[in-house]
Amino acid sequence: MSREIGGPLADDIVRRVEESFARQGLMAHLGASLADIRHGLVSIRMPYRPELTQQHGFFHAGGTSAIADSAGGYAGFTLFPQDSSVLTVEFKLNLVNPARGDALEAVGRVAKSGRTLTVCQLEVFAEADGERTLVALGQQTLMCMHSRADA
Amino acid sequence: MSREIGGPLADDIVRRVEESFARQGLMAHLGASLADIRHGLVSIRMPYRPELTQQHGFFHAGGTSAIADSAGGYAGFTLFPQDSSVLTVEFKLNLVNPARGDALEAVGRVAKSGRTLTVCQLEVFAEADGERTLVALGQQTLMCMHSRADA
Amino acid sequence: MSREIGGPLADDIVRRVEESFARQGLMAHLGASLADIRHGLVSIRMPYRPELTQQHGFFHAGGTSAIADSAGGYAGFTLFPQDSSVLTVEFKLNLVNPARGDALEAVGRVAKSGRTLTVCQLEVFAEADGERTLVALGQQTLMCMHSRADA
Amino acid sequence: MSREIGGPLADDIVRRVEESFARQGLMAHLGASLADIRHGLVSIRMPYRPELTQQHGFFHAGGTSAIADSAGGYAGFTLFPQDSSVLTVEFKLNLVNPARGDALEAVGRVAKSGRTLTVCQLEVFAEADGERTLVALGQQTLMCMHSRADA
Repeated sequence: MSREIGGPLADDIVRRVEESFARQGLMAHLGASLADIRHGLVSIRMPYRPELTQQHGFFHAGGTSAIADSAGGYAGFTLFPQDSSVLTVEFKLNLVNPARGDALEAVGRVAKSGRTLTVCQLEVFAEADGERTLVALGQQTLMCMHSRADA
Repeated sequence: MSREIGGPLADDIVRRVEESFARQGLMAHLGASLADIRHGLVSIRMPYRPELTQQHGFFHAGGTSAIADSAGGYAGFTLFPQDSSVLTVEFKLNLVNPARGDALEAVGRVAKSGRTLTVCQLEVFAEADGERTLVALGQQTLMCMHSRADA
Repeated sequence: MSREIGGPLADDIVRRVEESFARQGLMAHLGASLADIRHGLVSIRMPYRPELTQQHGFFHAGGTSAIADSAGGYAGFTLFPQDSSVLTVEFKLNLVNPARGDALEAVGRVAKSGRTLTVCQLEVFAEADGERTLVALGQQTLMCMHSRADA
Repeated sequence: MSREIGGPLADDIVRRVEESFARQGLMAHLGASLADIRHGLVSIRMPYRPELTQQHGFFHAGGTSAIADSAGGYAGFTLFPQDSSVLTVEFKLNLVNPARGDALEAVGRVAKSGRTLTVCQLEVFAEADGERTLVALGQQTLMCMHSRADA
């Protein structure tokens, strides 16, 4: 399998991500689903619903954060050993444009992976009328919990 | 009215926060509610539900972020002029303990208020068996949108 | 002139950056100099000196931050109107590898520019034995101070 | 010895901080010195010099960051085992007021200490005409490198 970020993944790693994601009650509750799973790169989509809004009718930054955090977390997870799990240490998000549109897509991408800590870049795009606009940009630190299987 | 952070607020400002919060579809969807509204300090509570979890059954960082972001945003909003609205520029959150318990409570507190930008400190506590544990610690930058009423 | 990030700049804008940089006493004190000035993208180099170290002999994160902050600040400044100045609102830096080598190079790049606020991505590389290693990755929020000339 | 943040420290820990600080070439180069060393809380002072300025004559955010990073790092270090050293994973700093005055003082304070990771809050004050103004507010993640003595 490719060692390049964005490259293809072995089926069992894809399955491990899907199974873990399926256990995140919040993702289902927000209507979010996995859109892409690659080596060190995961995308999550979340269609618009009134249940996801802030006071002006745009997507609430909390929902944006939720899919950005999960996208980054699973991007890191694809690089971790089989018997480990992932923990978010911290993340930072700049909200650079109003999050309005038919759906959001969060992309998490590993920028530096280490034995204990992994750093991801986070991007969230809004899709409206076939256009994609960057609405959030972030950075995240993950911790690999060795010998603590995710399931 | 007190100019001290945490001091009492005029009724119309409290009402303005409550009305704006009620329009945040995400807060209702997450089961979150306003717990305290003071001058430059707002708390939001969110009881545990399986719909709020990450893969290990704890509160998902996305939900934690959502109430932390709203708590900080409304803390800033209490200091803004009447005809303005609030925008989150960015925030950063460290997840310092597993977010497990019967409920989370997010506290946003203004650390520095300016004409255009306001900085808040964010704390999120988990309540379990009558104990309160700090689970997240953050910092947030808000922007006051002058002459753009919130409603 | 190109509107693309990394594109060429008019001479007077280059001069404006150089003159402002020359007034930053800290840059001279750290031995840092401008390496590249483009539309929305500025690089700053800082050769190794014992006066720049932390306790283990590597570059101190404070020096790394200093050139990263200036690189991002001037990257934003290249996009600002002539009679304005630049202010750093906040920045966040992950230190992803030991900062050892013959020199550091910080690259600031505008990711989103707005009338009031601009967001930059920050990268710092260490150069050692002809190799370039990413040592820091960051994100920065700038404010454009309109009608407040820099000089 | 007290387990409370801000409490007194054993002499050998104070000495360990002082010796490590003395090896930070950058601190001497910036004219910074240790002002206070307590359990989980360290302060560093840096008097004004033209060599520390940004383009408008105030303290450059890079110097502010340098002393904030060291103050937080050593605050964490006071809680670490004897044969360990400290690494900054990341930090975030909001620059909330112009950093002008006769001196800056950075205060790092442990907010959460763990076996591997420690989170600190960072404050930097400017002193001018006997007044103290908050100029920067931050948050920092540290890593304890076990069995890797600092010296």
